Amino acid sequence: MAKSLNELREKIKPEVQAAARAKAVAIIAEMSLAEVRKKRGINQADLAGLMNIAQPNISQIENRPDALISTLNQYIEALGGKLEIHAKFPDGQDIEISQFAMIK
Amino acid sequence: MAKSLNELREKIKPEVQAAARAKAVAIIAEMSLAEVRKKRGINQADLAGLMNIAQPNISQIENRPDALISTLNQYIEALGGKLEIHAKFPDGQDIEISQFAMIK
Repeated sequence: MAKSLNELREKIKPEVQAAARAKAVAIIAEMSLAEVRKKRGINQADLAGLMNIAQPNISQIENRPDALISTLNQYIEALGGKLEIHAKFPDGQDIEISQFAMIK
Repeated sequence: MAKSLNELREKIKPEVQAAARAKAVAIIAEMSLAEVRKKRGINQADLAGLMNIAQPNISQIENRPDALISTLNQYIEALGGKLEIHAKFPDGQDIEISQFAMIK
C-alpha cells in the first residue's frame, strides 16, 4: 500500500520541514498597490492608459487608505492579475468572498 | 543525508498527490458575505449590533455588488475574522495587498 502523506511527512527532518514552510510562505509577499505595480514593471502613465483614466487618478488610488473593491479589481486586472478577497478565521476557516468576483 | 521534499514527493503515487491537493483546495470555500455570516452563526440583527449600524445597512452591504474595503473589513472583523486581499498573477506570483490592512 502507498504511504500516506502524513507518514512521509513524519520521516522528514524538522529542519527540512521548517525550510520548506518558510519557502512556501515567502511566495506570498505583502505590498502596497504602488509596490505591486512596480513589481510588475508598469509605470503610472502606462497603467493610466490601461485603465483609461488620468495619471493623477492612479496616484490617488495608490495613496488613499481606502478604495472601492471595483476600483481595486480594475487596478489589479490592468496589471494582468486577479483580485482575491479572503476572510480568515481563528479556527482556520479560509473563505474566498465571491460576491465581488465579477465586478468590472 | 536527509531526502529533500521533492525527492519524497516523487515517491508518492500521483493519485495520492491528487487527493491531497483536492483536500487542500477544499479548505477554501467561496461564499457571498451573507453566506459567510450564516456560516459563522451570526444573524443580521446581531451583526448590526456588533458593527453599531442599523440592520437594513447589513442587508445593503450583503446585496450590493460593490463596497468600500473599509466597510468589508469592518464586516469581516465583526464576524471575528481577518480580511486578506490578494493579487494573483499568471506567473504564480501571489501578493497580499497590505495598503488597506489597518483600516478601521
